Amino acid sequence: MITLYDSLISGNAYKVRLVLAQLAVPFRAIEMDPFDGSTRKPDFLAKNPNGRVPTVLLEDGTYLAESNAIIWYFAEGSSLAPASRLERAQTLQWLFFEQYSHEPYIAVVRAWKHFVSKLSPLQELDLPERVKRGYAALDVMEKHLASRDFFVGGRYGLADIALYAYTHVAPEGDFELARYPRIRAWLARVAAQPGHVTITAQPPRA
Amino acid sequence: MITLYDSLISGNAYKVRLVLAQLAVPFRAIEMDPFDGSTRKPDFLAKNPNGRVPTVLLEDGTYLAESNAIIWYFAEGSSLAPASRLERAQTLQWLFFEQYSHEPYIAVVRAWKHFVSKLSPLQELDLPERVKRGYAALDVMEKHLASRDFFVGGRYGLADIALYAYTHVAPEGDFELARYPRIRAWLARVAAQPGHVTITAQPPRA
Repeated sequence: MITLYDSLISGNAYKVRLVLAQLAVPFRAIEMDPFDGSTRKPDFLAKNPNGRVPTVLLEDGTYLAESNAIIWYFAEGSSLAPASRLERAQTLQWLFFEQYSHEPYIAVVRAWKHFVSKLSPLQELDLPERVKRGYAALDVMEKHLASRDFFVGGRYGLADIALYAYTHVAPEGDFELARYPRIRAWLARVAAQPGHVTITAQPPRA
Repeated sequence: MITLYDSLISGNAYKVRLVLAQLAVPFRAIEMDPFDGSTRKPDFLAKNPNGRVPTVLLEDGTYLAESNAIIWYFAEGSSLAPASRLERAQTLQWLFFEQYSHEPYIAVVRAWKHFVSKLSPLQELDLPERVKRGYAALDVMEKHLASRDFFVGGRYGLADIALYAYTHVAPEGDFELARYPRIRAWLARVAAQPGHVTITAQPPRA
């Protein structure tokens, strides 16, 4: 059985839990604390030299890291995967947008405001810029959703899952979603998908 | 013919030029200045709402953004693409590592040191942390190359191309590669591939 090195506060780990739930793939989860240094200890670095969750142990003994690479792996051949060469590239475009232009701002601001008790001077100085760039990412999403129900190919898939993970908890970073009606309607569509699980739903623990 | 919205100083755009050259795909390039605001003007935002190069215009009129999504699109079915489900996921793992844990440090420090005349107070305060994280990314790469000639599947491919783009110009950000013998040997292997072009090689201009 697959093992997921997990964190219930990580939207990146949540992507994996959501995909595994919707594909009915059995797994066991090991909860890690992303803030206590345990992902930087030698035993974990032997699994993922980059020291991050989520990381999965596949049944053949291979470790796989990076949330969007992991969900791509499990979704291949399923209805969550893009159906054509162009849709694969468009899905990847949104997955890279999520990791480069969305997560470093929306997820980091959420972490700083919701999970960190005292910010460093650098973080204090950086916060307004991160908030600004988070809203810029939401602006791009709102614009894309003007003529679409889902991000790629007219149906629910990996791009929606990757973007949902931190967008739906953006209010925990004090991002105001009230000004984004299309994003809010899309969040509701994603949450209404068969087999949806919430970010706080307890997975099967090892 | 494909149009590439390009920048000769961008490692991300270079990935696309390198893949198109090695696959012998004809294209025309339009040079953009990433620093003069032209990628944030309405006519460019209509092409890529996220306002970044590289962006490509495909022959069917579709615009595609995000360097690693673009190179994935062109490489599909070629010898540069990963050959199995696991190798696809491992390649994506390195592509997401590159965009999340490598590019924001190595490419950004290079830009600040090589192309920006005066840093902002936030950039000044942030610089040492970015340098530290850049070296952390190089450490991960050096470790991975201890037992491998290329990043995935024992042969040259997309993961090598994505990581080569900014690693080989890391010295422009004052990163010292002398301490990374395996990375230097790998850089030489990548540069020796058939059809290799340098980052400064002029592409066909529109």
